[in-house]
Parts: sequence; structure tokens; C-alpha cells
Amino acid sequence: MSLFSFVRKPRPAKTAQTAKDRLQILLAHERSTSGSAEADYLPMLQRDIIAAIRKHVPIGEQDVEVRMERGDQMSSLEINIDLPGAASKAG
Amino acid sequence: MSLFSFVRKPRPAKTAQTAKDRLQILLAHERSTSGSAEADYLPMLQRDIIAAIRKHVPIGEQDVEVRMERGDQMSSLEINIDLPGAASKAG
Repeated sequence: MSLFSFVRKPRPAKTAQTAKDRLQILLAHERSTSGSAEADYLPMLQRDIIAAIRKHVPIGEQDVEVRMERGDQMSSLEINIDLPGAASKAG
Repeated sequence: MSLFSFVRKPRPAKTAQTAKDRLQILLAHERSTSGSAEADYLPMLQRDIIAAIRKHVPIGEQDVEVRMERGDQMSSLEINIDLPGAASKAG
């Protein structure tokens, strides 16, 4: 089974300022036993991963967009981060 | 542009023991300035993320499979982890 078939939706640019780096992180937790929600550590992982990224790049709260979906057999987490661009600032 | 169009390839089960939980993590770093490899922190993030997961689940070295691709404008990192299943062990 292919995980991440749920992605593939093109995201429209949020701002006109397209000269930014972007980091997209997708996590999928596929469970063998349906309904075993006790093993659902995606929310904790989300915090930890964002903290890990912050060790390398300064990112603000408003630069992080998180989407989580919980299913019976698969939970998924999507984190989109606008990185401080190395390019020249427009505006 | 849709990040993660590179996934979608179904992975064959590595073992016959399919009653395992799986965690798949995909990172894509999309650069606005091509060739700015100095901002390529995916390898470091890889370490940090696996460490973050280990805080919640005991995973062995052999349970982690990493694939990295570096492009001019996009670098991507795929981490596949076999989790210790909550289900009954087959065999």
C-alpha cells in the first residue's frame, strides 16, 4: 500500500513573495491493529520535530502550518514551514 | 508546484511479517535560490528526527531505512521506520 497518496494536492502560494525556501514534512503512521490510538504519538512528534528544525533555522510560530488527519488505520501529519530565505527580501 | 510528487511508489513488504506498524516521514526542502547547498540541513534533521522518535518508541538501527535525494532546487529525505508492533508477533 502506498502511504502518502493523500498528498499530491498542489498548494497555492500563500503570499506573492515566492522567493522563500520551504520545508515540507509529512509523517504517516500506519497501524497494523486498527483503532490502537494509544500508540498515536504524532502530536508529540510534531512538537519535537519543529523543535529539532529550530535548532538549525530560526522559524517563527506564524511560519509553521500544521495539518493532522486521524484515521482508523493511518494517522498523518503535514507540517509546512516557510523558511527565512537566503535570497534577497522582496519588500 | 506539488512537493512530494516523488512518493507514490508503492513499497513491497520487506518481510512476510506484515502485522507491524510503520512510520513514514518525508521531508522536502524547496530552495528559492538554486544551488544554495549551504542551507542543506536535511542530514542533520534526519538525525534529530530519528532521535525524537526514539524518545517515544524504541526503534533499532535496522528498523530505519533512509533515502536522500539532492536536487538543485529541491532536496528530499525519506525515512521509513518499522515500529515495534502492538499486535501479536507472528512467529
